Parts: sequence; structure tokens; C-alpha cells
Amino acid sequence: MTDTDASRLAGSPFLLACRGEPVPHTPVWFMRQAGRSLPEYRKVREGTAMLDACFRPDLVTEITLQPVRRYGVDAAILFSDIVVPLKAVGVDLDITPGTGPVVARPIREVRDLAQLRPLEPDDVAAIAEAVKILVAELGHVPLIGFAGAPFTLASYLIEGGPSRTHERTKALMYGAEPLWHDLLARLAVITTGFLRIQIEAGASAVQLFDSWAGALSEADYRRYVLPHSRAVLGGIADAGVPRIHFGVGTGELLDAMAEAGADVVGIDFRVRLDQAARRISRPIPLQGNLDPAVVLAPWPAVEARTADVLDQAVDLPGHVFNLGHGVLPETDPDVLARIVEYVHATSTSGRSRVGNEQLTRPA
Amino acid sequence: MTDTDASRLAGSPFLLACRGEPVPHTPVWFMRQAGRSLPEYRKVREGTAMLDACFRPDLVTEITLQPVRRYGVDAAILFSDIVVPLKAVGVDLDITPGTGPVVARPIREVRDLAQLRPLEPDDVAAIAEAVKILVAELGHVPLIGFAGAPFTLASYLIEGGPSRTHERTKALMYGAEPLWHDLLARLAVITTGFLRIQIEAGASAVQLFDSWAGALSEADYRRYVLPHSRAVLGGIADAGVPRIHFGVGTGELLDAMAEAGADVVGIDFRVRLDQAARRISRPIPLQGNLDPAVVLAPWPAVEARTADVLDQAVDLPGHVFNLGHGVLPETDPDVLARIVEYVHATSTSGRSRVGNEQLTRPA
Repeated sequence: MTDTDASRLAGSPFLLACRGEPVPHTPVWFMRQAGRSLPEYRKVREGTAMLDACFRPDLVTEITLQPVRRYGVDAAILFSDIVVPLKAVGVDLDITPGTGPVVARPIREVRDLAQLRPLEPDDVAAIAEAVKILVAELGHVPLIGFAGAPFTLASYLIEGGPSRTHERTKALMYGAEPLWHDLLARLAVITTGFLRIQIEAGASAVQLFDSWAGALSEADYRRYVLPHSRAVLGGIADAGVPRIHFGVGTGELLDAMAEAGADVVGIDFRVRLDQAARRISRPIPLQGNLDPAVVLAPWPAVEARTADVLDQAVDLPGHVFNLGHGVLPETDPDVLARIVEYVHATSTSGRSRVGNEQLTRPA
Repeated sequence: MTDTDASRLAGSPFLLACRGEPVPHTPVWFMRQAGRSLPEYRKVREGTAMLDACFRPDLVTEITLQPVRRYGVDAAILFSDIVVPLKAVGVDLDITPGTGPVVARPIREVRDLAQLRPLEPDDVAAIAEAVKILVAELGHVPLIGFAGAPFTLASYLIEGGPSRTHERTKALMYGAEPLWHDLLARLAVITTGFLRIQIEAGASAVQLFDSWAGALSEADYRRYVLPHSRAVLGGIADAGVPRIHFGVGTGELLDAMAEAGADVVGIDFRVRLDQAARRISRPIPLQGNLDPAVVLAPWPAVEARTADVLDQAVDLPGHVFNLGHGVLPETDPDVLARIVEYVHATSTSGRSRVGNEQLTRPA
């Protein structure tokens, strides 16, 4: 961030909450807020493949701005995909609609690692350009940078695509530990590079998505994954921007994910925020965690559960309201708009006591 | 169970462990032990559709016995599918290879409920017959009866098939609560009937599978699901057979799942057994929980993790060794055989102290 950015963003409720400072109201953004639930998104994406869109500054900019215009959320998140930096270093992969990423030559042996060289700024010049345009357009709204964590990237690379059980990934992890650590270390270098480039271009926070980490036990996470996610989060620590660390189904991993170097831990909808706080051994701002399926319900149900999430957050050192997973494609955007309004109004009225209280919690 | 069964099964390590009584060795069985990982299974299933196989006593018997012959496990589990009782009451559905259950007319409105009448013994006469043959064949090895829990069945019926996000299910749950409870109450009646028929035919334990319950927060589980699973588990309480209650990704639900009326709680591989015990507010035998993907690793890794699971179980009132989810199709049966051998040998040697110690744990 430049000094100009810093002053422009000084009052950002999102950045204040991430730092555990007092906020005018609880900030809100939604994971996957830019995407298929928006008609304006479907329109601009028409005829353009996902990965092509991710490398076109005009589309990245437009798509990233759409939910900010529509919802008045407190942060934008760079429109991208978890596999973008892999594509950028030359891994032969594509995103197949309805399936997800498909990797041409999955990684199974040492020689397959040659596909993974460090990321150079030129590889993602289009994305850096998009970030710069976005920062200028967004004004006082901060932009969150985006990257997939080494474990989740490794799972795609090893399985060759999305997997429910991650069995090849785990077989390699348990059975070929040196290869595993070599692979994850390379992915950590790529991910760190990708986040640094976004921060240098003006992103004022980042979220590290370890989408599939919840497939691991805590012991395995600590042994096989944590050191590499720590390398990423530690590798950008000097940039001074808040680092959010999120994964799905990570109720058992929250303390380890905080330990990896997060400033904010994103909480899946399955775990209550107050419960999540008790599982993490230091007070830390949390992000989350309305069940995205709740948003499909009638408004009174949405309102009650939104209020409940705010209630659970009352004693946190900081709270960024979000869903507990990405926006579902069937979501009615008007309901998301109403949630933003509700969270802002409710937390302004003094109902939420979120501030910089540093509470000591039982481990 | 008849008196003859009772005396024949009196020394069953599996039944003893389920009741928290001292065991000669830690009992083992594997979820999905009968299935695609066995060449003999693939052979007998050749040319027969899954649902047809589930209604043929000769096939159900043969397939159920295969893993007992091969592994010397301490319990057999009836070869069946979660949708069998739905098919039996006339719901138009099929199991599509590679996809799973597909329901012709998904349940979305009150009138769709007419598909769900209570189960009559004649509907599943073939299955009762298979159970009787099995009990005679199995001798001193107990047979576990099998049924899907109301929530998981409801998800299939509402979504029309498997779902990753269960969004239609949740939309109905939040948005049409009376219809929801009517649906789950009907499913509870069917499930209870299906389990009773199996128990009356000779099953000496049951497992209620709530495969998808982990998609819910604890608050939602308690409000929308627990009363119906309790109706099932309570509805067979007088039969006096151990009731195992299991779901995937249920780290937040364990106490509620015990409260529903379980005698044994099955633990997903993501949660340590000692941690799981702390989350349940009464001492209770646990089942689990080696990660099925670990079985694909080289033996030293399998052994270390199997030993770790046994270690975590040392202070439990009872422990049934199992995987933390079903056997993966790629599994080498020889590794499962070796695990059975290892668990039996290790826990006999006095390494495991599993017995009827009733420990008081912090909530």
C-alpha cells in the first residue's frame, strides 16, 4: 500500500476489524460475491472461458466491481481462480464448466515437479494491471487479494481435478513425504509470489484459501501442510496487510490455521463463532459465517440467523461478517443486499460490541 | 435376538465393546467392508444392478459374508443401501453407477409426501430372509443392521440425488418447517420399521447412518433433525441391541448425536477419539476412526496411524476400531487384513486398556 492508499483507507471498517480496532459498524463481504449469482456477471462472462476471463484486466476489473456496486460491501475481492498462478507458470490445465480445474499431466513423481517454477511478475502482469485499476476505482473500499493455499493446489495437481476424498493426494503425502514437501514448498513459493504481486499492485488485505484442508486431521495438517502455509503467510508478513486464512470444514484445524500466521481466521458455517474462538489459543478476529444455504430461505429465517451470527461475535476482538462458504449460484442478490443493510444497521445501533477488547479465553 | 443367539454371541468382542464391557481384544470392522474393494464382490455383482442385488437374499448373504471370511472382522454389516427402504415403499428411484441414488419425482411439496407410506414386513421380506440366513451362517460373529437416518434420506428425496451443498434441502428446512417435519417424521417411521425388521430377523446391533448430517450446524441439527433421529433410535430401544450413530464431518454434532439415543457414536477421521470423547457430555463407547485414505499408504504409515487410533481410545469406556468413513474402492484388501491382525494382536497384548472404566470428563 502507498501512503495515499493508507490515508484513503484509514477509516475502512473492514481493515479496522481485521486489526481488532473499533469499527463504526461490522464490515461485510461475501466469499464468491462476484460470480454466477449475479445477472451482470453472467452477461459479461458470456462467451469467455473462466481462465481467459481471469487474465483479462477489463473483465477482472468489471467483475470484481459488480458486487461492490450492487451490495455496498465493505471490501472487494479480486476475481480470480485458485489455479490462476499455476496456469501462469505454465501448468497445462483448464477449468471445465460443471467440473472445475482439470490438469493435463497430474503430479505423481519427482520429474512432474519440473512443471512448477517460481512465478515471475510478467506471468501475471494482466492481474497486476487489474489490481491497479481496481484500487483506483474502488476509492475508500479495500481490495482483498486472493490465492489458493499449497495443500489445495497440491490436491488439484495430484488428483488431476477436484476430488471428494483426496485419496491420491493423501497416498502421496503419507507414502512419499520428501516429494510431498518438495511439491508443497514449490507451491508455497508460487503462492507467496502471487500474493506479493497483488499487494505491491495495491491490494490492502489477502485471503489464503485452503479450500480442502478440512479433509485432513489436525495431526496431518500440522505435519504436512502447516509449514508450507506458514511459509506463505510469513513470506508476506512484512507487507503489513491483514492476512485472512480460510478453509471449509476446518473445525478441528482452527488453532493450527491461526498458528500458520493468520491475522483473521475465516470460519466455516458448521462451527459457531464463539466456539471457534475457544478453539484458537490466542484472541484473533474472525470472519464468517452464515450458512450460504440460509440465504435461500425466506427473509425472517435469514434475519434470525444473521442476528445470531452477530450475537456470537460480540466478544471477539474483531468480526468481519461473511458467509461460511461461497455464495451459491441460485442466490437471490437482493437477499445479499438486505443482509449487508441489516448487518450495517444492526451493528451501528450499538447492538454489537465488537471492538478491541482483548479477552482471555480458555484454550 | 433369540436366546440361542444371545448365548452364541455372549463373548463377542464387538458387542462387549458396544456395551462398555471388558473385551479380549479391541473389535474391528470396516464401514463398506463389503464392496468394490473386493475382487470377489466385483465378481458376484457383475451384471446385477445395485438395487437388484440389495433385494436378492443370495447376493446379500454372499456379499455380507465375503469380508468376514477374508478379514476375520468382529462384525458383519448387512449389505444394503441407504435408499433400500424407500424403494421398498414404492418411491421411484434408482442407483446410477458413478452418481448414486437418483429420485424420479423429488419431494418439494406436501402432495409429494404421498410417496412415503410406512414400511410393511412384506416390502422387505427378501432382506429379512437374508438376515436370517446370515445369522445362521455367521455363528459367533454378530450381524449389524443398517439404515440411513431421516435427514440423509430427506436430502436424497428433496435434491433428487446426491448434493454437495444440500441447498434445496436446507431451503425447504428453513422455509417450510411444517412440511419438513412431516417429511422427516414419515422417514423416521420407515427407518424405524426397517431396523426393527432386521432386529427381529436376528441382527444383534444396528448402525444408523446420517451420512450428510455434517452439512448442518449444531443448532440446525438439534432443531430440524435430532427429534427425528431420536424417534428412530428411541423406537428400537426396547430391542436391547447396541445402536451405533454415525455421520461424516460431524465434529460439531457428536454430543447431539449421542443425545439422540446412541449407545455408540461413530467418529469421522477428522476428530481425534480423545477429543470426540471430550465433546460428548457422557462417557460412551466410540467407533472409529482411521482415515480410509491412510490405508492406501505404505504399511509403516498405516501401522503408525492405527497405533495412534488405539492410543487415543485407551481411556474410552469402549472402542470399536473402524475407519473414519467407508473403505475406498482402490483399497488393497491385504492391508485391511493386516490392520485387523494388528489391532487384535496389539490390543490383546495389554497395550490397550479399553474396558468398562467410567470416566468423568470435562464437558
